[in-house]
Amino acid sequence: MINAILFDLSGVLYEGDTAIPGALQSVERVQASSLEIWFITNTSRKTRSKLLDDLRILGFKVNPDQVFTAVDAAKSWLQQRGLRPYCLVHENIQGEFSDFDQCDPNAVLMGDAAEAFSYNNLNRAFRLCLGGAPLVGVGYNRYFNSGSQLLLDAGPYIKAIEFAASVEATILGKPSAEFFHQALASTTAAADQALMVGDDVFGDVEGALNAGIQGCLVRTGKYQTGDECKIRGNFHTVESVVEAVELILGGNC
Amino acid sequence: MINAILFDLSGVLYEGDTAIPGALQSVERVQASSLEIWFITNTSRKTRSKLLDDLRILGFKVNPDQVFTAVDAAKSWLQQRGLRPYCLVHENIQGEFSDFDQCDPNAVLMGDAAEAFSYNNLNRAFRLCLGGAPLVGVGYNRYFNSGSQLLLDAGPYIKAIEFAASVEATILGKPSAEFFHQALASTTAAADQALMVGDDVFGDVEGALNAGIQGCLVRTGKYQTGDECKIRGNFHTVESVVEAVELILGGNC
Repeated sequence: MINAILFDLSGVLYEGDTAIPGALQSVERVQASSLEIWFITNTSRKTRSKLLDDLRILGFKVNPDQVFTAVDAAKSWLQQRGLRPYCLVHENIQGEFSDFDQCDPNAVLMGDAAEAFSYNNLNRAFRLCLGGAPLVGVGYNRYFNSGSQLLLDAGPYIKAIEFAASVEATILGKPSAEFFHQALASTTAAADQALMVGDDVFGDVEGALNAGIQGCLVRTGKYQTGDECKIRGNFHTVESVVEAVELILGGNC
Repeated sequence: MINAILFDLSGVLYEGDTAIPGALQSVERVQASSLEIWFITNTSRKTRSKLLDDLRILGFKVNPDQVFTAVDAAKSWLQQRGLRPYCLVHENIQGEFSDFDQCDPNAVLMGDAAEAFSYNNLNRAFRLCLGGAPLVGVGYNRYFNSGSQLLLDAGPYIKAIEFAASVEATILGKPSAEFFHQALASTTAAADQALMVGDDVFGDVEGALNAGIQGCLVRTGKYQTGDECKIRGNFHTVESVVEAVELILGGNC
């Protein structure tokens, strides 16, 4: 019995700047049902406000209070600890961290920085971490589908710094179980009554399963043939978010 | 009883363009002894000929036949298999791979590419590997001392692509046991009669131990306080190559 549904955004509801066929209607069907709904994303190429704008432009009617982002989680984590992060993040979201003292950093924050993942910037992150600065990752995603091609996400670069400095990053966002539980905390559903729908077999599906949440992998976005064989555990694999919603509303989850 | 000594180069015999104090005399002492001597390096920022030139300019008298490089090992590996590598390597050594057909690549070669580790180039490597191209690494070093600062080496970037594409790289060079054994094959010494002297606790010392070779860590080059606690096993830790040679020639190894 599913009481809450957690939707990943990029690759599930849209690819690049195009909605997945049927995604709008599927989200509306869930919104019209008794299910609780959440949108949870590791995206760190857009500000929260741009993310909400883009969803609206695509036609999704989303309550901003139901959007849970890894960038917000990372900001809170750093604020709570009074840290001065070196923010190796995309130029689009640098402004989200303007409240932080970034002089003489004592922490490293890594998101999906794209071209900002230069040799110089990664060396700076590495030397700070080797000197003891905690490493904070916005998600641990390996790659994503930009709409036209697969592109490296933050995960591989976080892995590189972890290896170089022999440290372990604190991951804010999926697949952190804490992140899933924070999203669920404002619903009435228990973990095993919630279903995560995502295109990332590791970040979305394996992460959800490890958090005690049910998982559903869609064959859109970054999905590659055989992804469903890369992890262990029981989960659904469906063509797209449309079939995922059919499954849930049909009581087959 | 040590019969052969394997010297790492950068960080052991020199740092940047300066010889480690006493290194010249120490190498000469070994050359005047009955010990067999090898120089083995993962350096992939210089051609073999530049490497030999730089050693000569610093004053080291080195027989080129006794210099064993990871770049050479990688070239042989690719040639033997008739592969067409995408060479993500330093611009200084691109010419070393001019004999390879690099159109429509079906393999990925990664060395210490420095600024060439751009987002675009890493995405290209990632997509080739995700599509099934074998990933070949020139060493797996985490970082090195450029003379003025620590800089990321090839290892973290290889790790990034391994993670992104869920593949395992074939490492040519240290710490591959095969590489150590190839170097030893042209000596009369058995593995346990050989000693590897290096500044990289993972690549040099742990690698040697895993290949059945004795290990000696020097506190020069990339060495950081506490490095000797990062691996398990019995090995020596000494101030520099001078003390390492004292130890060997004094019969204390």
